[in-house]
Amino acid sequence: ESCSIYHKLGWENSAQKMMMDEDVEQASLLSFNDRPRAFPNMRSKTYSPLIFRILRRLNVRVLSIILLICFGVIFFMGASTSPIILFVFTVCIISFLLSLYLTKWVLAKDEGPPEMVQISDAIRDGAEGFFRTQYSTISKMAILLAFVILCIYLFRSLTPQQEAAGLGRAMSAYITVAAFLLGALCSGIAGYVGMWVSVRANVRVSSAARRSAREALQIAVRAGGFSALVVVGMAVIGIAILYSTFYVLLGVDDSPGSMSVNDLPLLLVGYGFGASFVALFAQLGGGIYTKGADVGADLVGKVEQGIPEDDPRNPAVIADLVGDNVGDCAARGADLFESIAAEIISAMILGGTMAKKCKIEDPSGFILFPLVVHSFDLVISSIGILSIKGTRNASVKSPVEDPMAVLQKGYSLTIILAVLTFGASTRWLLYTEQAPSAWFSFALCGLVGIITAYAFVWISKYYTDYKHEPVRTLALASSTGHGTNIIAGVSLGLESTALPVLVISVAIISAYWLGNTSGLVDENGIPTGGLFGTAVATMGMLSTAAYVLTMDMFGPIADNAGGIVEMSQQPESVREITDLLDAVGNTTKAATKGFAIGSAALASFLLFSAYMDEVSAFASVSFKEVDIAIPEVFVGGLLGSMLIFLFSAWACAAVGRTAQEVVNEVRRQFIERPGIMEYKEKPDYSRCVAIVASAALREMIKPGALAIASPIVVGLVFRILGYYTGQPLLGAKVVASMLMFATVCGILMALFLNTAGGAWDNAKKYIETGALGGKGSEAHKAAVTGDTVGDPFKDTAGPSIHVLIKMLATITLVMAPVFL
Amino acid sequence: ESCSIYHKLGWENSAQKMMMDEDVEQASLLSFNDRPRAFPNMRSKTYSPLIFRILRRLNVRVLSIILLICFGVIFFMGASTSPIILFVFTVCIISFLLSLYLTKWVLAKDEGPPEMVQISDAIRDGAEGFFRTQYSTISKMAILLAFVILCIYLFRSLTPQQEAAGLGRAMSAYITVAAFLLGALCSGIAGYVGMWVSVRANVRVSSAARRSAREALQIAVRAGGFSALVVVGMAVIGIAILYSTFYVLLGVDDSPGSMSVNDLPLLLVGYGFGASFVALFAQLGGGIYTKGADVGADLVGKVEQGIPEDDPRNPAVIADLVGDNVGDCAARGADLFESIAAEIISAMILGGTMAKKCKIEDPSGFILFPLVVHSFDLVISSIGILSIKGTRNASVKSPVEDPMAVLQKGYSLTIILAVLTFGASTRWLLYTEQAPSAWFSFALCGLVGIITAYAFVWISKYYTDYKHEPVRTLALASSTGHGTNIIAGVSLGLESTALPVLVISVAIISAYWLGNTSGLVDENGIPTGGLFGTAVATMGMLSTAAYVLTMDMFGPIADNAGGIVEMSQQPESVREITDLLDAVGNTTKAATKGFAIGSAALASFLLFSAYMDEVSAFASVSFKEVDIAIPEVFVGGLLGSMLIFLFSAWACAAVGRTAQEVVNEVRRQFIERPGIMEYKEKPDYSRCVAIVASAALREMIKPGALAIASPIVVGLVFRILGYYTGQPLLGAKVVASMLMFATVCGILMALFLNTAGGAWDNAKKYIETGALGGKGSEAHKAAVTGDTVGDPFKDTAGPSIHVLIKMLATITLVMAPVFL
Repeated sequence: ESCSIYHKLGWENSAQKMMMDEDVEQASLLSFNDRPRAFPNMRSKTYSPLIFRILRRLNVRVLSIILLICFGVIFFMGASTSPIILFVFTVCIISFLLSLYLTKWVLAKDEGPPEMVQISDAIRDGAEGFFRTQYSTISKMAILLAFVILCIYLFRSLTPQQEAAGLGRAMSAYITVAAFLLGALCSGIAGYVGMWVSVRANVRVSSAARRSAREALQIAVRAGGFSALVVVGMAVIGIAILYSTFYVLLGVDDSPGSMSVNDLPLLLVGYGFGASFVALFAQLGGGIYTKGADVGADLVGKVEQGIPEDDPRNPAVIADLVGDNVGDCAARGADLFESIAAEIISAMILGGTMAKKCKIEDPSGFILFPLVVHSFDLVISSIGILSIKGTRNASVKSPVEDPMAVLQKGYSLTIILAVLTFGASTRWLLYTEQAPSAWFSFALCGLVGIITAYAFVWISKYYTDYKHEPVRTLALASSTGHGTNIIAGVSLGLESTALPVLVISVAIISAYWLGNTSGLVDENGIPTGGLFGTAVATMGMLSTAAYVLTMDMFGPIADNAGGIVEMSQQPESVREITDLLDAVGNTTKAATKGFAIGSAALASFLLFSAYMDEVSAFASVSFKEVDIAIPEVFVGGLLGSMLIFLFSAWACAAVGRTAQEVVNEVRRQFIERPGIMEYKEKPDYSRCVAIVASAALREMIKPGALAIASPIVVGLVFRILGYYTGQPLLGAKVVASMLMFATVCGILMALFLNTAGGAWDNAKKYIETGALGGKGSEAHKAAVTGDTVGDPFKDTAGPSIHVLIKMLATITLVMAPVFL
Repeated sequence: ESCSIYHKLGWENSAQKMMMDEDVEQASLLSFNDRPRAFPNMRSKTYSPLIFRILRRLNVRVLSIILLICFGVIFFMGASTSPIILFVFTVCIISFLLSLYLTKWVLAKDEGPPEMVQISDAIRDGAEGFFRTQYSTISKMAILLAFVILCIYLFRSLTPQQEAAGLGRAMSAYITVAAFLLGALCSGIAGYVGMWVSVRANVRVSSAARRSAREALQIAVRAGGFSALVVVGMAVIGIAILYSTFYVLLGVDDSPGSMSVNDLPLLLVGYGFGASFVALFAQLGGGIYTKGADVGADLVGKVEQGIPEDDPRNPAVIADLVGDNVGDCAARGADLFESIAAEIISAMILGGTMAKKCKIEDPSGFILFPLVVHSFDLVISSIGILSIKGTRNASVKSPVEDPMAVLQKGYSLTIILAVLTFGASTRWLLYTEQAPSAWFSFALCGLVGIITAYAFVWISKYYTDYKHEPVRTLALASSTGHGTNIIAGVSLGLESTALPVLVISVAIISAYWLGNTSGLVDENGIPTGGLFGTAVATMGMLSTAAYVLTMDMFGPIADNAGGIVEMSQQPESVREITDLLDAVGNTTKAATKGFAIGSAALASFLLFSAYMDEVSAFASVSFKEVDIAIPEVFVGGLLGSMLIFLFSAWACAAVGRTAQEVVNEVRRQFIERPGIMEYKEKPDYSRCVAIVASAALREMIKPGALAIASPIVVGLVFRILGYYTGQPLLGAKVVASMLMFATVCGILMALFLNTAGGAWDNAKKYIETGALGGKGSEAHKAAVTGDTVGDPFKDTAGPSIHVLIKMLATITLVMAPVFL
């Protein structure tokens, strides 16, 4: 076992026995004052969310009884709503139990030698410290916004349906605000869970990498799987609980004068908005944190000083590793959570609308279909995750195994199961005697969605994997200098938007057509299944979401493990294993981003339709079309597209500014402490962490506020303009066109940013394999510049746009009454 | 006077007496074989367009008589059409005479010492050689396309109006094709004129710079003014001739059963399409040429070898200087020509439609208004150009005079005159007894346009001039490395889209509102002046086009002059003068690009309305709205936005590939001829010119073909899809939404690319003034990388998108019958 280099060089006086249990907060608080540490404890005080602290004080027996009562109530409400809800509850609870098993399994793995534990602790401290500050800011903003929503809903008018159902203004306001806050809370928990597991799994993966590549892979996958199951399960069960609560609370039944079940999903939109609100700031703050630190560390470390990535001499390296956790794990957890929540809610709304139009006897099958699809998603993804074994398949003869192939095999298995369960769910829930073959049409829509998901993953891989032509051309362009590398990367990214757009176009049109020809017709005999067909395709696309999220979470855990291995100066063979995992993680991250943007595109199209339904319901006027030949509506489109550009600008600029602060700090440390480069002096890691954290918190506000304020401002301005120029619904129309143009522009911009960033990263990796002169060559330097530029593209601006697109859709839904 | 360095070092044996007259082609052909030259003659054979060769063979007296007869016929037709046309003819002919005077004046200036003339000849040879090859390719494609249009129009149905007027299919087909070919020819001539004068003016500016900064400025301005007057004059007179020809030919009068004057402008669309078709390829080919050479030369010269820009040792330097002429002068001439043509035609169509709706007695005032506005444009811009004097104002005390201030003074004068003449024109032509105050509303619309133009110019200056915050921040980002420079530049560019979008939004809405409240109503009392108000605002924006084009042309001429001064190794003081002019040229170029994109945005909105009118007319169905809630229409929007991304990608990639070829060639020359760096050996300039020329011709085809084919393919596919799914007009609707989304996305993308490019360029120039370490520092190197990346952005992709936007609008207009 290699000994820590810090130890050898006397940075550290006493090798400490490190804590192996989860109660690390407690222990590290004790240790903070009375022993010298290689890595500083970067928290000002111990962090434990309030809810945990309260729970911890309760007696275990009391706690169990409370939990049981909660479950009982939930199950009772589920049972009074629909047997489908009961099924959903059961599956979710089983998958929570499974995720508990996965945690136990991961935590039971050893944490390796003390030097690894030290680094891991420092990362954990930094991540949890940032998380706490970030989420306290976000929660303050959420409460403020909740108050605004409350005021708006208290003064708005109700829809005729709601009035008929005797739903008062106050009731409707409280429901929306409660849904918003629950969504925000769940989104926050989703983020926390992602980070919680990754800061614990990273060191265990590093440690396992000393023994076997396969074991390291398995730990990373199971850790990712834990948070994926929790995230997806929470989205599903949250909506199911809200739905059945409203069902019971509002006394839904078919008698006139009571709330119709078809109108129930509209009450859930607050949940989606809460989720996307938190996700937006989580992604922005985390993205700025991770890439500010990464770019800053690379610029001084790799480019100026020529030291490797994650070298312990670089003062910004801990900040960089912390960033992986808060930026990738926490933020992506929140992002996927809100994707799934928004998509479920929009599909439920469309299902309800269609069921009403077609006068279907029991609409609950159509409304609850998305929840069932995602319940099956939990089941099949668990199978996929568990299919990845800790020991190698004896029949594989090659000495080096490609981890990508292992993950891909699990993905293929999951996809096959998804096709089967999806078909079964459509037959179960979407069969109706009015149109006996409709379920089959919808099953085909689901298949369209699954194929679309697969195509998106494949296209992202094609453009970002160095096995293929585009990245190789990009690497070649690096050999003529920094300039040609950037030009080639930008054009690669711009070009890579073409195929996904073609795929999504075909998917939208064919799913719509399949839905429309399903045989479901309204009372006038006009086919009405088209939009629901698109919704089913979206569900098909997301029907393997938990597995995809697992692959996504795998990336930053492997990346962090590599960092820990590098910093603790492990032997070359260990580094090779984590490097391999890291490279695969890059590819899966790029691929899942393609998946996320594809589903965002489809989900936004659904939410847009839901928005039009909502406006119709509130205004009691038919709102069926958004005519861009009207100058104001065209201007709305211009403003929507501009919003995407400006948002991307501010996100990138935030990273650039943060990175410059890091660069200046690191340069200062190198100048003031010349011993750092000879391992004689210890760099001040915690200062970099503090700088990045405060910069990220400061910088996330501007783009976030822009995203939230602009649709509201535009809607209000054009509402007033419409009032004075005598154009009814102008505000709603302009916001609709703003939303559509922003969606289209956002899809393209996100694809561009994600792919260009991924390709630059992998072009650098390709050169590092020895091509075109290898490490240290001029081509490599140019490739590193490209990688640096790509960092904020692919991990800050790009993923933030995914969230932005869906947040725009949910904010317009919730704020619809304001625009009328 | 400094002696040529080549001369000193014996590269050249005999100092030649150089030709001072225009018959340079003839002379240089003679000289090619019998004397050694410092700069190779790069033409395979003498170039003189066919038409000139024919004209030259004719007897002068015969020629004069033919010309007089032509004028007579034109005036006769004009007189039988409308007195307004006579006015337009007269102004255009006077401005042609003035432009002849400007040419004589410029050509009468001396060409300086032989070493300058040599360089200038080499540039001229390269530019004319490329122009010839490029335009022979373009003309072949144009003829092919003309044939396709002919076939389409021979098999399409006619509009009811046309049938009523007895206009046969064949007649309509010939008219459209003739207009297309005339537009293409004029656009080609516009490009040629721009290049013709710039390759002759550059050396005269260099020579004058040895005497006085003011004289150099005046020569560059007058040379630019010449081509601006010709370009604008040709656009105006071309349309006027076509209009009066059609008027006389089709026997337009108010009697039923004959063609109505209101429908006449629709026949002109072919002219606009021809102009934009040629401009697209001219801009693409020229843009790829100029930036391929520039980037290649910079990467090896400035970055690798550390020699200054335009150093005679760099083998790619002549190619770079040639590029300024073919890329900036020729292409921008064609670009502005088609901008003005497209805008005039769309405004005429809208004027005709409105006049018909409002049943205005004599609609010719409304239809011919744009021609009058541009006639006044010629007059006031001439005054502006002539106001720039060759001697300094004695009252100015500062020792160094800012050329920008001089140009700005001329611009302010032009704008003031524009406001006055615009007001007068509206009173003259738009006064109608039905709505006595309408002319005043329209005058205000024009004012909105003029203010918009001014705001665009100002915003571009703010974001690209290093006197302001953004570029300084960008320069500061360079000090932390290549990566942060690129990130900061990208975010600056993305951010810079916001203000122009706000300005254009306000302009569209307020002009529409002013038009709608002008008092013009249709028979049902519904206000109808809105769109025409927007059209008038566009005209207001373009009402100083000739002066703006002059400033635009000034840039590359000054740039070239600087190159000649550098290459002929003139003393520092001369270089300082041309450097100053060059820097001003960069700013004016950036500002006029803002102007061009603003007018493109407005013009496209008009052409879109014209397209809807056209489709209504052909389909005999009302086509009033483009509803993006229909999935197919939404997909059309997705595809339209994607088209912009893909087009930009291919344009940038083309430059990257061309630059790589140049880099490899220059590296090869430096290795094979080590004497080049010590001035001992002569670089092979012509090989670089040949490489760039053939690469540019090859690379322009792919993006150009994409732009032309995609709207046609999309229209046809959705027409067929609409046929099978029973949705009438689906093809036309999808194309409409494609057009609108492409316009919006194109405006943003072009703004981003132009501003980022300009800002990078000026951040580099700012550092070269000595800031942040000055030339040779690390910050400077990073800034040079940014400049390199910005080159294809601002001079290839960006300006090509301006043309693309308008070409999409005109192609859909011409191809409308195919989509039905």
